[in-house]
Amino acid sequence: MSKDERLVRQITPKSEDFSRWYIEIVQKAELADYTPMKGMMVIRPYGYAIWEAVQRQLDRRIKETGHVNAYFPLFIPESFLKKEAEHVEGFSPEVAWVTIGGQEELEERLAVRPTSEAIIGFMYSKWVKSWRDLPVLINQWANIVRWEKVTRPFLRTTEFLWQEGHTCHETAEEGEAETLKILAMYKEFCETELAIPVIAGRKTLREKFAGAQMTYAIEALMSDGKALQMGTSHNLGQHFSKAFDIKFEDRSQTLQYVWQTSWGMTTRTIGALIMAHGDDSGLRLPPRIAPQQAVIVTIPASGWRETVLPVAEKVRETLRAAGLRVDLDAREEFTPGWKYAEYEMRGVPVRIEIGPRDVKNGQAVLVRRDLKSKETVSLEALPARLAALLEEIQANLLSQAREFVAANTRTASTYDEMKTVLENQRGFVQAPWCGGEACEDKIKMETMATIRVIPMDLDHVPVTGGCVCCGAPGKATALFARAY
Amino acid sequence: MSKDERLVRQITPKSEDFSRWYIEIVQKAELADYTPMKGMMVIRPYGYAIWEAVQRQLDRRIKETGHVNAYFPLFIPESFLKKEAEHVEGFSPEVAWVTIGGQEELEERLAVRPTSEAIIGFMYSKWVKSWRDLPVLINQWANIVRWEKVTRPFLRTTEFLWQEGHTCHETAEEGEAETLKILAMYKEFCETELAIPVIAGRKTLREKFAGAQMTYAIEALMSDGKALQMGTSHNLGQHFSKAFDIKFEDRSQTLQYVWQTSWGMTTRTIGALIMAHGDDSGLRLPPRIAPQQAVIVTIPASGWRETVLPVAEKVRETLRAAGLRVDLDAREEFTPGWKYAEYEMRGVPVRIEIGPRDVKNGQAVLVRRDLKSKETVSLEALPARLAALLEEIQANLLSQAREFVAANTRTASTYDEMKTVLENQRGFVQAPWCGGEACEDKIKMETMATIRVIPMDLDHVPVTGGCVCCGAPGKATALFARAY
Repeated sequence: MSKDERLVRQITPKSEDFSRWYIEIVQKAELADYTPMKGMMVIRPYGYAIWEAVQRQLDRRIKETGHVNAYFPLFIPESFLKKEAEHVEGFSPEVAWVTIGGQEELEERLAVRPTSEAIIGFMYSKWVKSWRDLPVLINQWANIVRWEKVTRPFLRTTEFLWQEGHTCHETAEEGEAETLKILAMYKEFCETELAIPVIAGRKTLREKFAGAQMTYAIEALMSDGKALQMGTSHNLGQHFSKAFDIKFEDRSQTLQYVWQTSWGMTTRTIGALIMAHGDDSGLRLPPRIAPQQAVIVTIPASGWRETVLPVAEKVRETLRAAGLRVDLDAREEFTPGWKYAEYEMRGVPVRIEIGPRDVKNGQAVLVRRDLKSKETVSLEALPARLAALLEEIQANLLSQAREFVAANTRTASTYDEMKTVLENQRGFVQAPWCGGEACEDKIKMETMATIRVIPMDLDHVPVTGGCVCCGAPGKATALFARAY
Repeated sequence: MSKDERLVRQITPKSEDFSRWYIEIVQKAELADYTPMKGMMVIRPYGYAIWEAVQRQLDRRIKETGHVNAYFPLFIPESFLKKEAEHVEGFSPEVAWVTIGGQEELEERLAVRPTSEAIIGFMYSKWVKSWRDLPVLINQWANIVRWEKVTRPFLRTTEFLWQEGHTCHETAEEGEAETLKILAMYKEFCETELAIPVIAGRKTLREKFAGAQMTYAIEALMSDGKALQMGTSHNLGQHFSKAFDIKFEDRSQTLQYVWQTSWGMTTRTIGALIMAHGDDSGLRLPPRIAPQQAVIVTIPASGWRETVLPVAEKVRETLRAAGLRVDLDAREEFTPGWKYAEYEMRGVPVRIEIGPRDVKNGQAVLVRRDLKSKETVSLEALPARLAALLEEIQANLLSQAREFVAANTRTASTYDEMKTVLENQRGFVQAPWCGGEACEDKIKMETMATIRVIPMDLDHVPVTGGCVCCGAPGKATALFARAY
């Protein structure tokens, strides 16, 4: 559709068809579009601007914790992928293979990276020789390809963008400390920037990363009651260092294998923003991550170019000078009503209306996206008020999301109870688990719910009761949910 | 080598073996490393930090000129690549093909993008319907794969990183204006940020981008007298809009094909920095692009931890607070001499030495990398002096490079004269050209020189004399050189 036809029509209500609602926001807010290749999407400028904001905020944290960025090859020789047995088993079904280069059949086919442990492990074996070379704290921003069967924009796509950290350490303790430090960083990032509360915990062995010793994850609850994994941090132990022969001379001149971690967050975060905060009018972006924090919409009336427009332009400059990301939409080919709907769809946190009467009174009308409430503010007070309002919106989105998680986290002491909750209310279910894979599999088969994590918050809380599935003594309190 | 063994040894002098000198800097400054896959490199953290600085400065300019970023798929269906005849002919010899995905042979093989006109053209045909949708001003930062036969780190690699702009316009004039605007932006970027002077001009039809109507380029001269193409800006005319059916309804309701441009700069810029500014001690980075603008090296002596170190730390904080990128190297496992050689190799613009005597006198010693000259500065004056010194270094690198280009740009009125220059001094040769491909081919065959560009600066200067090759009337003054 061209801009002049593209009236923002009513979208499917979230309560009616969540999946359709999601896809309609992706398309109408121009976040992404489909391509003729199955499962491959284009991230459109508005979606990419959100990703750039995510990158900026996450990259800052990655660097502040002592990591540096680098870039490793897109391709991985098949023989490298095979070096770690669990790794190749886990990833080979999803690999896209390059078999021809420069018009010739390749002697060894090349995997388009599904993750980079194998190629990075090889390079680290060249670079690491002594304890003085440790720790290695490297991150890369890259594209990843996994041949997925069922795809959905941002949530699961054949190609996606991510950052992947890959570190080497002298001791097991340092590796574990790094894994947890990153997990905490991810949690803080999600809550502070995305206004999405997450539960941090350990994955079960069944759900861990192929090749890891232990996977930690942060899990969020989407507004349809399904869980979404927001990020993972893997303690790789010495699995890859043994496979790739990454050895160092330690402080007592003994050769040792390094201890490694890897961790990542992806463009899936954009899907999470939609599903955690969106409503029936579209996206609701947290101000800290919003490409535009406010948009000024002028209300035309006769002579508005001479009266309203100069004031609106001045307001934009004043707000920009105050460090706020503010645009002005003074286009005449669209009505104010059309623009209101458009910026609501795009989730811009605040709309600033300026019309002839406002100019006369030296004021503007602020409409916040999260609550749709209005207030009138004098132009002088506007920069300070807008800055404060953006903070209020950020805080409100987080607190709304927290309330939703609290209201949708239930305990279950019997299997029937758990099944009823998963069937009727969804959300998180906390329940004792015996630690057995048989129960984990049975629950997944019968309820479509998986153990999202063993929450670390509950580590020091005694497990009450027997396994929700088999009744054997509970070894841990697990967090179950249906998930994306 | 591990850090403790990695003494910075003498590198091959540039005058003795330029290629070896180049490769040794790439490796010893830890800019990049080889992988087991031919022509694929790893960009190591220090090299990547330079790329991040390039990105930051170029991305700012791209956005200031009204462009937005997006992300298009890595893969391009073969049928798309074939839609523009010249395009597929130019690129198909270099394509890496994905033929297997998810353990199944694909029905249609997918090119790993060698450039993105084809997939972007397809998407634009979906998005553009009316003049109101124009101009489309989109850029992407991405990885690119071209199966190159002869490779060299940064200069020509199977995979490289770049930005590629792809725009659509209502009229031919607007397309041409965009092409030239970007060319001017690239030139200003190279000269301001990289301190590399460039010549802007048109490519001949033989050298233009496969599928373009006209290619413009900026060409720099490396210190061995060979030219390097630093960036290209293509006026695509309606070649791709006709191939991909990108039509819009114009202001008089008539359907028209859009006019397009595309343009790119790559990680090759890092190779250019080495070859334009490097010397026999290593890299010399322009301060505006240097990841570290200065490094403080402490001179240890008894009790230095109590005397020198606190002062050095305070100096670092003061300089950082002044907005300068300054690190402190207080490691005891390396001698000051080792560190001096290391930071010279890495091209850090200024070294700040602080020893016991300096602390006593409230001063520091500044050593500039470009001229290796020293000066003593009081600690109070240091922030202002360092800021000024960095500007002097930036200006000096540019002026040294400008002098080199001036001294190595020669005119030739006869073919013998041109051959002698290209054989003995290399550099740029300005000479009249008849405009014929036969002469262009003959010159390339016999002298290994190509027409780098028809410089735009010379557009209004009358061509003096006949074609340097065939003697027929000169149609343009061309800039010839051997090139990377």
